[in-house]
Amino acid sequence: MRDILYLEDLKPGQRFKTASHPLSEDEIKAFARDYDPQVFHTDPEAAKHSFFGGLAASGWHTAAITMRLQVDSGPQLAGGMIGAKVELSWPRPTRPGDILHVESEILEVKPSRSKPDRGFATLKSQTLNQRGEVVQLQTSSLLVWRRKEG
Amino acid sequence: MRDILYLEDLKPGQRFKTASHPLSEDEIKAFARDYDPQVFHTDPEAAKHSFFGGLAASGWHTAAITMRLQVDSGPQLAGGMIGAKVELSWPRPTRPGDILHVESEILEVKPSRSKPDRGFATLKSQTLNQRGEVVQLQTSSLLVWRRKEG
Repeated sequence: MRDILYLEDLKPGQRFKTASHPLSEDEIKAFARDYDPQVFHTDPEAAKHSFFGGLAASGWHTAAITMRLQVDSGPQLAGGMIGAKVELSWPRPTRPGDILHVESEILEVKPSRSKPDRGFATLKSQTLNQRGEVVQLQTSSLLVWRRKEG
Repeated sequence: MRDILYLEDLKPGQRFKTASHPLSEDEIKAFARDYDPQVFHTDPEAAKHSFFGGLAASGWHTAAITMRLQVDSGPQLAGGMIGAKVELSWPRPTRPGDILHVESEILEVKPSRSKPDRGFATLKSQTLNQRGEVVQLQTSSLLVWRRKEG
């Protein structure tokens, strides 16, 4: 069981690490067919002649897997993990056979000025492959509830 | 047929508008089961008692649908739509029955300093529902190829 975390439980420098997700070629193609049907995400042969030089997962697929890993085995925030805004980049492609996990760190914790029941935490998350290479960098502003008084 | 766009074809202020995508409750739940299994995305009853006050799509689902709309009917960039980095926010929830489309505008066009065959375009995209309300705001830095000389 993971502890349920309220705003008061979060501190800058706190770190979290998820379980891992092995990514298959079929999963890459299935996501891409639904949401990002470009040849470098759907067709291994055609992908060889693209910018990626071979099949690569859609960045949105990497982002979705990152979310799943965070929900299942990342920080368990009271009331759920609710992002208000996010910055994302993909320093290198996610490939078939990659085994992904997420390492994250609290950068900032800030009570809301107008609403005493909540605040925001800034979470920096790196999605890494089995060689420790970063495939996605993400900085998220998350809504976090405060513990109820009394 | 859409024109295939190279860096030279893009200008700040250029606008694009996609077709639309009607989003069902089943689609919201299916995406969430795979990638963001939190009750406010999977269980309409439990969602009533959450921050969202009812079932809402995962923000990553809204982002994925936005990508699909852009790929199918947004600006058709030579070599595909390849994002280097992205800023995202979700000013309001995406709901079952929403009909989404994307309106986007080129903010900046910049040749690469080191690589003469390419450059970057900054694209601001709004994902809107059937009432014209913005459900996602996105600013993307896209890799765009230059037309070959000769």
